[in-house]
Amino acid sequence: MKKLQGIAASSGIAIAKAYQLVTPDLTFEKVTIDNPEKEIERLDKALEISKIELEKIKEHTKQAIGEEHAEIFSAHLLVLGDPELINPIKDKIKSDNTMAEAALEEIANMFIDMFKNMENEYMRERAADIQDVTKRVMAHLLGVNFPNPALIDEEVIVIAHDLTPSDTAQLNRDFVKGFVTDIGGRTSHSAIMARSLEIPAIVGTKEITERSEENDVIIVDGIEGTIIINPTEEELVAYRKKQEDFLKQKDEWAKLKNEPTFTKDKEQVELAANIGTPEDIEGVLNNGGEGVGLYRTEFLYMGKNVLPTEDEQYDAYKSVLEQMGDKPVVVRTLDIGGDKELNYLDLPKELNPFLGFRAIRFCLENEDIFRTQLRALLRASVHGNLKIMFPMIATLEEFRQAKAIFLDEKEALQKEDVKVSDHIEVGIMVEIPSTAVTAKQFAKEVDFFSIGTNDLIQYTMAADRMNERVSYLYQPYHPAILNLVNNVIEAAHHEGKWVGMCGEMAGDPIAIPILLGLGLDEFSMSATSILPARTQISNLSKEKLASYKDTFLSMGTAEEIEAFIKEKTE
Amino acid sequence: MKKLQGIAASSGIAIAKAYQLVTPDLTFEKVTIDNPEKEIERLDKALEISKIELEKIKEHTKQAIGEEHAEIFSAHLLVLGDPELINPIKDKIKSDNTMAEAALEEIANMFIDMFKNMENEYMRERAADIQDVTKRVMAHLLGVNFPNPALIDEEVIVIAHDLTPSDTAQLNRDFVKGFVTDIGGRTSHSAIMARSLEIPAIVGTKEITERSEENDVIIVDGIEGTIIINPTEEELVAYRKKQEDFLKQKDEWAKLKNEPTFTKDKEQVELAANIGTPEDIEGVLNNGGEGVGLYRTEFLYMGKNVLPTEDEQYDAYKSVLEQMGDKPVVVRTLDIGGDKELNYLDLPKELNPFLGFRAIRFCLENEDIFRTQLRALLRASVHGNLKIMFPMIATLEEFRQAKAIFLDEKEALQKEDVKVSDHIEVGIMVEIPSTAVTAKQFAKEVDFFSIGTNDLIQYTMAADRMNERVSYLYQPYHPAILNLVNNVIEAAHHEGKWVGMCGEMAGDPIAIPILLGLGLDEFSMSATSILPARTQISNLSKEKLASYKDTFLSMGTAEEIEAFIKEKTE
Repeated sequence: MKKLQGIAASSGIAIAKAYQLVTPDLTFEKVTIDNPEKEIERLDKALEISKIELEKIKEHTKQAIGEEHAEIFSAHLLVLGDPELINPIKDKIKSDNTMAEAALEEIANMFIDMFKNMENEYMRERAADIQDVTKRVMAHLLGVNFPNPALIDEEVIVIAHDLTPSDTAQLNRDFVKGFVTDIGGRTSHSAIMARSLEIPAIVGTKEITERSEENDVIIVDGIEGTIIINPTEEELVAYRKKQEDFLKQKDEWAKLKNEPTFTKDKEQVELAANIGTPEDIEGVLNNGGEGVGLYRTEFLYMGKNVLPTEDEQYDAYKSVLEQMGDKPVVVRTLDIGGDKELNYLDLPKELNPFLGFRAIRFCLENEDIFRTQLRALLRASVHGNLKIMFPMIATLEEFRQAKAIFLDEKEALQKEDVKVSDHIEVGIMVEIPSTAVTAKQFAKEVDFFSIGTNDLIQYTMAADRMNERVSYLYQPYHPAILNLVNNVIEAAHHEGKWVGMCGEMAGDPIAIPILLGLGLDEFSMSATSILPARTQISNLSKEKLASYKDTFLSMGTAEEIEAFIKEKTE
Repeated sequence: MKKLQGIAASSGIAIAKAYQLVTPDLTFEKVTIDNPEKEIERLDKALEISKIELEKIKEHTKQAIGEEHAEIFSAHLLVLGDPELINPIKDKIKSDNTMAEAALEEIANMFIDMFKNMENEYMRERAADIQDVTKRVMAHLLGVNFPNPALIDEEVIVIAHDLTPSDTAQLNRDFVKGFVTDIGGRTSHSAIMARSLEIPAIVGTKEITERSEENDVIIVDGIEGTIIINPTEEELVAYRKKQEDFLKQKDEWAKLKNEPTFTKDKEQVELAANIGTPEDIEGVLNNGGEGVGLYRTEFLYMGKNVLPTEDEQYDAYKSVLEQMGDKPVVVRTLDIGGDKELNYLDLPKELNPFLGFRAIRFCLENEDIFRTQLRALLRASVHGNLKIMFPMIATLEEFRQAKAIFLDEKEALQKEDVKVSDHIEVGIMVEIPSTAVTAKQFAKEVDFFSIGTNDLIQYTMAADRMNERVSYLYQPYHPAILNLVNNVIEAAHHEGKWVGMCGEMAGDPIAIPILLGLGLDEFSMSATSILPARTQISNLSKEKLASYKDTFLSMGTAEEIEAFIKEKTE
């Protein structure tokens, strides 16, 4: 079988050869050698290739995600050139007639063990550096590739078990035409990134790393979630045609790029984008985004060893606001905990992290971290149209407490004569059932709501969306979810407030007519979903959809509702 | 400081000396000996005491929780008398001049290691048996107690880090006057059991095992959650008086034992009890329970190595139904997973077990286990007034599927000419927000609802009730919870169905007036809460409370609602 099915994570068609982003097998058989000079020569060559690669990776990382992320590779280069590590390896080869692989392993392990057991945190990190470098050198001694996204310099499909946030951050769109992973779902980080990078991607294939090999030709059909390994000529022709059609459709969508979003009956809604870094704004504007509906600020805190400073944050927020001009930018304050950990904060391990100490719960207990972020946001507010929202709000007290801290920092800055905007709306994420149920009470005090469906669905259904055994309960069209969304919108409109949605549901072609019918004001989605959504909405009548509302809200099951909406919008 | 504060888990006052239910320190210093005969004598004596104790524990366990739970002690007794284990120990003492403790440890560990690594599960269990027995014998060699609830034969206060379900099942009310633990909360298993056993208890003291010693005199004030260690004469007098007053109040309550439950304005409600085993029924009837609102069937499946047979289950259900006569008994079908594991079923470890594969989700995937339980229930149904409810229902499809299996088994039994009742109501637990939100849809198909507040609160607030860092979010009076409860009751009454509540909230004196106002039909609680609740309800006007409903449902915070209700019911 050369066909594989996965979860379509980012649409489009890609055809290229496979690049296996997988740690290679680094085991070797120990043999005695008779020419130590030759071994030393092999070692020097492996060190030299590793050095060239690490320099390339360092440079690429600096360009792609910034100087501080590249520092680790400077450390790796230092290790690589350290005579205190290299000389003993060479000595061992000479004195014991040891093969280079065995000498490298033995000496490196000695240093790793030594550093690992040190009190000093800095020294313990050296152990990890030596380990990383040793693997790369070992790979070159064994004549195998030690892959890294930065080393890709031709058109490929990346094949991986999973992609970490730092992997995806380094993918170069010029070369990486698509990717396929063993694990993950439509809402996993790599899937969201793929849509933001606009490269076709398929996740959750379970076995792509096992089933494909380096340099296999791969077709990625990100529309259907199908992968073909080493296709026939016929298949190639058919998929090139499909690729062409898809690009033509994209051109159609592109015509709406600078248009506002209107329904067929001339009702306006706003289509915004979810972003993670200032670099994402280019994609937002290229895809006709009318705003940023969710700026996830976690990336500022992740992939490094210290908290971001106020100035670092200010620079990022300012950059996003300036690029967006007068278009609204909704920034979500720090949402860590749950499945998002920060190793340098040493958060407690929890039995049920999704029901634990995260997001606003963490920020209200760690006010210094929270205040730093709010100050950075307040200072940046003069550069654009800033709105702030707090994640995981479950009670009015939490909102009041967070808002009070915000006002406190605002006043403090004003006293220091720092200019801040006087028009910053302060709202909340609605992602906890209690908040959706009591939206009426909240609507009196917040400036806006943004419904976070990913979490709202998992809590409302009491089903971990990452747990495959209960994933059938992750039902966006479940009447409970739609009734809660309806409750939030009605409560907000009653108080003259607006409601957005920034979960994956907002960009889903089946959910869009439902949400239009319920009166949602702002839809925030992956940038690449915006133009298809604008096209779809231009063909829908809000009045007609609203007239179905009572019918679908009183239906019993998600299945029934989906069938009903499909029939009504055909 | 000899005063300690904890969480009042079961009310009443107890005064007795401390019994430390804590594994003793079993370390020893190795010394050489010169009289091996004396060591063998010491060993024989320790074996003999252990044997007497184990026989006592076995007998007690059999009486308290049944024959099959006592089997493990038969296995322990076999180990204790096994010459293949004992002779090598004695040989070692003689041949190496080893002290008895060291010989016991060395030989026992040898056997434990051997059995532990065997393929055969049965043999691996032997390793655990030998370990348990060795600890007891070691304790007697060292002259320290190896405590066990079954060995208590005088009036004591049990002091423990935590009490396991099997510990609590063995507590003898004649001797155990109260208990105090380091960990736990009002809804933890040991707290619920304490209320059902009617013994004063305080949990979550954090440090009682550290702060108290064997034979200390302990006052347990289960009303206030206060513990006094080695009280003064004055304190003793004061607390004896408080104890007397409490017992007098209990006598007052007892007058209502055989009365129905009416509000001041003559509206009737039903006060039922939550139970775990047939043995609990005595307490239910003694406390004036008008029914069983929640029979947790998990205990049938726990603390043993195989699934209960259909006949074992039938016997338990029949016993409960017969004892209750024509009073209703609501049986909840198997609710495992989450924090309740069955080691013999090998359930997968989950990242968020509370949002995972549990209860009805498990049963619908393991139909054989589910069908066995339903058959046992159907067969028992002719012996009383049986109602069945399914736990953790999140979607209508799940209810329909479970109900269809129930009807299928009913038909199958009837075809075999087995008599089954034709009046079994089939309902659901409402403990997942989706179900509370869509109660209207469910009300058309179920016979009744029972609101499980412990889970409903934790999911609605997205806060693990076992996680201390977010326990402040476990708010029974939060307007979201009350609005959901209201929605369930209104939906049910609209379809002529009844609604019960079987979470801890149903017995809470602050929640009771709220729930009366919302129109709850059945309150199911710890048996010992029934008479106080009946007394409280007889002084409340349902009409008046209902007139406050719109006011408190639109309030913003739990705090506000609590203050409002307290003021109105003063």
